[in-house]
Amino acid sequence: MELLKQRILEQATVIGSEVLKVDMFLNHQIDVALLNEIGKEFFRLYADAGITKILTVEASGIGIACITAQYFNTPVVFAKKGVNRNAEGEIYSCDVFSFTKNAKACIGVCQKYLDKDDTILILDDFLAYGSALTGLIDIVKKSGAKLAGAGIVIEKGFQQGGQAIRSSGIRVESLAIIESMDNGKIVFG
Amino acid sequence: MELLKQRILEQATVIGSEVLKVDMFLNHQIDVALLNEIGKEFFRLYADAGITKILTVEASGIGIACITAQYFNTPVVFAKKGVNRNAEGEIYSCDVFSFTKNAKACIGVCQKYLDKDDTILILDDFLAYGSALTGLIDIVKKSGAKLAGAGIVIEKGFQQGGQAIRSSGIRVESLAIIESMDNGKIVFG
Repeated sequence: MELLKQRILEQATVIGSEVLKVDMFLNHQIDVALLNEIGKEFFRLYADAGITKILTVEASGIGIACITAQYFNTPVVFAKKGVNRNAEGEIYSCDVFSFTKNAKACIGVCQKYLDKDDTILILDDFLAYGSALTGLIDIVKKSGAKLAGAGIVIEKGFQQGGQAIRSSGIRVESLAIIESMDNGKIVFG
Repeated sequence: MELLKQRILEQATVIGSEVLKVDMFLNHQIDVALLNEIGKEFFRLYADAGITKILTVEASGIGIACITAQYFNTPVVFAKKGVNRNAEGEIYSCDVFSFTKNAKACIGVCQKYLDKDDTILILDDFLAYGSALTGLIDIVKKSGAKLAGAGIVIEKGFQQGGQAIRSSGIRVESLAIIESMDNGKIVFG
């Protein structure tokens, strides 16, 4: 998606060779007009997939999911972090590891919000090592719902998450794939 | 807002006399069509206030803020939870206490995303004892920006937050105010 790539080149900052900060338009301050273009693009990609629900994980995924859901006319469900599997009863949960935060968290969705008749589109802001996405896929599998695929705003193609998930047969559409960020220079795939 | 009150009566569940669960349409599963009506109502209330930015706090506020921002044509900024004041540099931060989670958290916003020339509308899903809203107001004050007021989806009028904040001279518009939930019966103000 050219508009997104252009914005990344103009405004994102690279820290080291692995961290990309896009908090000026995507995950702290949010450019809602850009989010609408992102939503339209996800709709273009998955318009024929029969999506009945969009699944994401708090916090950065929620804005993307809500704006995109307007094009699909579906509800959004967001997985909550810090779920206590034992205390909260009927929850589909999964442990995910955040490399950014260097911490493990349990994410979960109330079972009543994912039905086996649903067709799910998973959306998230980033795909790097794929831990959050793998967790969300696992939650969809546990629910018995059909998974249409995932939509990712920015994929770090030089980390292994996207490759591993695609090779397991799951459709992953990323709007911008970064091949490298060596010496602070962003190169798209 | 009648549509919202009706939805609360139809779908919300009351636990004890203080907890209202609306996670089937507002803060776990999200009815984005309803959110659009909520956004229109916030715009009706604050259309003439010269809003340049919408401020909220993760996680439940983000969807409300993004959908509403489409009517105001402004960006959204969301305060992050678990900010480490000492480590993260130029941040406006404030400690808030969650009665739901019975825990204190430090919320924060990067200084560069709130400008003294901004006119801010604060949005959130709930107002109860007012800790989160007071924290967001404090962050706006620290930034030197103008605060137009707050927009709240559901206010628990029987807890003291709204009263205290309004009596300090701040405009607070709540789309549904619950006066009591005794014996599981929801009574609006």
